[in-house]
Amino acid sequence: MKRFDVAQLAHVEIFTPDPDGTLWFFKEILGMSETAREGQSVYLRSYEDFYHHSLKVTERNEPGLGHVSWRASSKNSLERRVKDLEKSGAGKGWIDGDLGHGAAYQFVTPDNHRMEILWDIDYYQAAENETTSLKNRPQKRPNKGVPVRRIDHVNLMSSNVTANKNFMMDELGFNLREHVVKNDGSEIGSWLSVSPLVHELAFMGDQSTPERGLGKLHHIAFWYGFPQHLHDLSELLTENNIKIEAGPLKHGVSQAMCMYVFEPGGNRIELFGDSGYLIFDPDWKPVTWTEEEVEQAIIFYGAPLPDTYFKYGTPHVKSPVPSK
Amino acid sequence: MKRFDVAQLAHVEIFTPDPDGTLWFFKEILGMSETAREGQSVYLRSYEDFYHHSLKVTERNEPGLGHVSWRASSKNSLERRVKDLEKSGAGKGWIDGDLGHGAAYQFVTPDNHRMEILWDIDYYQAAENETTSLKNRPQKRPNKGVPVRRIDHVNLMSSNVTANKNFMMDELGFNLREHVVKNDGSEIGSWLSVSPLVHELAFMGDQSTPERGLGKLHHIAFWYGFPQHLHDLSELLTENNIKIEAGPLKHGVSQAMCMYVFEPGGNRIELFGDSGYLIFDPDWKPVTWTEEEVEQAIIFYGAPLPDTYFKYGTPHVKSPVPSK
Amino acid sequence: MKRFDVAQLAHVEIFTPDPDGTLWFFKEILGMSETAREGQSVYLRSYEDFYHHSLKVTERNEPGLGHVSWRASSKNSLERRVKDLEKSGAGKGWIDGDLGHGAAYQFVTPDNHRMEILWDIDYYQAAENETTSLKNRPQKRPNKGVPVRRIDHVNLMSSNVTANKNFMMDELGFNLREHVVKNDGSEIGSWLSVSPLVHELAFMGDQSTPERGLGKLHHIAFWYGFPQHLHDLSELLTENNIKIEAGPLKHGVSQAMCMYVFEPGGNRIELFGDSGYLIFDPDWKPVTWTEEEVEQAIIFYGAPLPDTYFKYGTPHVKSPVPSK
Amino acid sequence: MKRFDVAQLAHVEIFTPDPDGTLWFFKEILGMSETAREGQSVYLRSYEDFYHHSLKVTERNEPGLGHVSWRASSKNSLERRVKDLEKSGAGKGWIDGDLGHGAAYQFVTPDNHRMEILWDIDYYQAAENETTSLKNRPQKRPNKGVPVRRIDHVNLMSSNVTANKNFMMDELGFNLREHVVKNDGSEIGSWLSVSPLVHELAFMGDQSTPERGLGKLHHIAFWYGFPQHLHDLSELLTENNIKIEAGPLKHGVSQAMCMYVFEPGGNRIELFGDSGYLIFDPDWKPVTWTEEEVEQAIIFYGAPLPDTYFKYGTPHVKSPVPSK
Repeated sequence: MKRFDVAQLAHVEIFTPDPDGTLWFFKEILGMSETAREGQSVYLRSYEDFYHHSLKVTERNEPGLGHVSWRASSKNSLERRVKDLEKSGAGKGWIDGDLGHGAAYQFVTPDNHRMEILWDIDYYQAAENETTSLKNRPQKRPNKGVPVRRIDHVNLMSSNVTANKNFMMDELGFNLREHVVKNDGSEIGSWLSVSPLVHELAFMGDQSTPERGLGKLHHIAFWYGFPQHLHDLSELLTENNIKIEAGPLKHGVSQAMCMYVFEPGGNRIELFGDSGYLIFDPDWKPVTWTEEEVEQAIIFYGAPLPDTYFKYGTPHVKSPVPSK
Repeated sequence: MKRFDVAQLAHVEIFTPDPDGTLWFFKEILGMSETAREGQSVYLRSYEDFYHHSLKVTERNEPGLGHVSWRASSKNSLERRVKDLEKSGAGKGWIDGDLGHGAAYQFVTPDNHRMEILWDIDYYQAAENETTSLKNRPQKRPNKGVPVRRIDHVNLMSSNVTANKNFMMDELGFNLREHVVKNDGSEIGSWLSVSPLVHELAFMGDQSTPERGLGKLHHIAFWYGFPQHLHDLSELLTENNIKIEAGPLKHGVSQAMCMYVFEPGGNRIELFGDSGYLIFDPDWKPVTWTEEEVEQAIIFYGAPLPDTYFKYGTPHVKSPVPSK
Repeated sequence: MKRFDVAQLAHVEIFTPDPDGTLWFFKEILGMSETAREGQSVYLRSYEDFYHHSLKVTERNEPGLGHVSWRASSKNSLERRVKDLEKSGAGKGWIDGDLGHGAAYQFVTPDNHRMEILWDIDYYQAAENETTSLKNRPQKRPNKGVPVRRIDHVNLMSSNVTANKNFMMDELGFNLREHVVKNDGSEIGSWLSVSPLVHELAFMGDQSTPERGLGKLHHIAFWYGFPQHLHDLSELLTENNIKIEAGPLKHGVSQAMCMYVFEPGGNRIELFGDSGYLIFDPDWKPVTWTEEEVEQAIIFYGAPLPDTYFKYGTPHVKSPVPSK
Repeated sequence: MKRFDVAQLAHVEIFTPDPDGTLWFFKEILGMSETAREGQSVYLRSYEDFYHHSLKVTERNEPGLGHVSWRASSKNSLERRVKDLEKSGAGKGWIDGDLGHGAAYQFVTPDNHRMEILWDIDYYQAAENETTSLKNRPQKRPNKGVPVRRIDHVNLMSSNVTANKNFMMDELGFNLREHVVKNDGSEIGSWLSVSPLVHELAFMGDQSTPERGLGKLHHIAFWYGFPQHLHDLSELLTENNIKIEAGPLKHGVSQAMCMYVFEPGGNRIELFGDSGYLIFDPDWKPVTWTEEEVEQAIIFYGAPLPDTYFKYGTPHVKSPVPSK
């Protein structure tokens, strides 16, 4: 039952050369809270993330992706996936765990994006002054910034969209929901999910002259659910000199109302202002956008995306975020 | 794999003694479109419903529930469920199908709510003037009323919440997401789902003096995703003399921002203005609201619900909708 | 030119028996900032209030109205109004000023609500870390609470709506925009303005058994302009145990989308989530709602208002806010 | 009292070479209603416009401005303004009236934009099936398109912003609210109002190689008040193949959340999605944006405006709207 073995995106680790700036951004502007700190890493979560953390920020000399962590649907699901990953040659072996979770099996995509899959995980327990009578919410709504509610998805730049997509479908059981396909049959982008969300994971072709090899992060997305919060955040960012790369706008693919910003460390962050559409059809035929339809695929309404959107991922040689 | 065998709510049939009024409401106010008409029935869908119909309106001398239709996750899933339903004694046998779908297996809940499960289904094909370049949307956004986007869930009044809940969990593989439990252990309400939605199905205890037997409908919900549309709809309803029973408000259970109205036939319709929260945790522990917490469970913010909300379902002897 | 002599609501002073609670509410929840503190008073403003303060909070042993301050349209306008007020017998004489403004002429309404009118006023100058490149905004958007943008209006409880209304129209040049009139000709409420806003000032009949005399405050309103902020604030209030008296809802009168809460000191505060409608017609005929239409006048959509709304003003013998 | 003599924008007349397309746009997409038809002209209004019409659409062989109509504050105000206009040489004389209003005095700006000022005006009377119990609303909310609420302002392209601005200030009593000034002292744009709105009238420098002389229209704006309606309209326009030139975005000047579209006749229409900020200060100092600040003045957040925004007005030699 490969199809149901992965349940969700558990957390993402990013690297930052500017941990103070990065933490200020996620805590003061996006209202996330710090749950732990160890070595060069700080663990953060949104107020509706149920686990110990959804974001791990680790200091490095340049920005980029640490790893992506997936939660299996059960202990058995985990074992089935590990068996297949071992056979595939993509598996890297078990680690004992990290703050917030137990044993995890590490693997890489064809493009060398580091990932892991796990079952044992720690739930967040609210401190006394953070509890809420809203029993399906793990903590009180924060009183700071324009607080994001939960992690939503990750988008990875790829030298070969199809190879990476196939790997996630074949080894992990992801479903292809939408893709953009050139006339020569090659894919420009693919959107994959294990749930009714259109994607927890996307691969986008790297249109830059390849720099510093593979494994680049395009963006991580956090979820608001309400369009007004994108407008509120746009004001807060502008008045705090954080560069908005694009949006608020609405994509054709996934019908996402969203915006993109660069956190001070240089990584691109997407903010998701509605829920797009959801896919409940168990027999969903992937939506294929052709080369001629790529414009509508990218922008349903709003201004065209800037060049950086297609060429900048992290790590990157020339960052659009000025160094300090 | 009972757990993944049901994929989604496919459609609901309601009865109405006022087909003209009911159709006016769904078409002119909620912007739904008619896809077929046969005998005493009219088939409707929202603009983001992918199948032939999500709502079947059938003329009867009083309002109420026709049936609820679930789509299985595969042909095999369907067969597995039918086998279990047959064993359980709840099965009623196969029908050849209806407009918009093939063979369906009929069954009833302990409270005699009529349901069916099916696999073969017809997709909606937009007429030429209704096509859209937005390839993940089955038709153009309507230009009428405040158009709902898709069917969301159904809520059934029950003489025994626990018995009905257990049936759906045991025979169909639904997951319990939240429930309200009295101090004596009996359940006032249960919210169940097969997807990350908190519910496609809820059972609420019937607090009226039982009238006209079992099988009552509390409400069907259609989805907007945007809070402003509840405000827009409230204006449109008020200016068109349609009674708003409650809301806009936000429930504690499911965190739904929503409102309730009576369509002219007398059935209660919920409009859902955001996406609430979504459950991706494969090991979700049901949220239990106690008798003392029932107020927060029902209303997170907004005015208390009126008495009708707890006592009126359809069919009902004394309708809050004045007869014409 | 009495008609144009008063330009705007400048500020309001309220009394509070719980200054810590009151300041926490306005600063942490409504995102207002403190600009000065003197004696038993603290001066606050919203982030789009241009002057030194829009709210003065003064410690007293019970909640209530300090005074309402109006800004004249010019020095000449001020002189004309003072002359008329002196003649009317309502004038109390000049004060030298207060923090944030110069000489002001004090007067009282027939119900003894304390008011003043002034011309010289101090503009707020943002501290260096509060400046914004948005040159029509006096300071950066705050990063705390759900920040209100400006003071909007004041609503006063009255023993005699008509007498108070006439006074403001005759002596200050206010325009009657809407009123609710009983079949016996007496007014239940009147909404008055000097600008296209439907009201900067309203008088509502006191329906309680008159307690502690005249001069009661019904509420002060602060402005958001965006409906989502009422939803955001509702969440924040609920999770911080602040009582929401009513709303979000939409009034018929003034078409205001709004909500009402009690600040910890016991005064009622309205939050205004849109701009209602604006009156530009120089020949506006006041909208008269009859006794039969009072329900639509009060609620265009949303639940009926609770009894406290009609009977509680400050100061009041029995407060709906539990004492600590 | 020149300062208060003009009360409001009453209506605007535009020319269109495609009356069917233009009327379809205003009626089906913006939900406006037709109140009269005479000769080559059709008279329209938004559902919260109180007068007979706010928009007159007249067939001509190219798009452009017919005239702008201002309502005086009183009969005396009108007489005072006419006297000054006659002296200024800009006056063209009286007309008896038009459908919906009585005698009007015609004049032109230095750039030859045709205007008129009037006092006698007809109020809209709703047909029986269009009445509403909301007594401050002249008709029921329409059930079509994304209905605009009222006319907001007009923006005129100018060969000389300062000359046109001075004329409106000197002869009509408009107040300068904001302007963008180049380092050489010349104005790029000026925003003027007679009410707390930041503008009922703006002049923008024509940056195209001047074509077809003076008197061009940049855009007319209609008001929603709610940001979601810009998103809703964007969907409706995109799915109906109407070109969105820019937005949704937020200007620095006036803090307007808005978008721009071309109606099928070729005129630019702005849709206003909030209320921006309002100016109540009677002693307002105009906000001056310098050449260096022009970018923030134009875009507070959102993508940069396209070149057409600065170079296209109507009439124009090369229209961005493809001819049919």
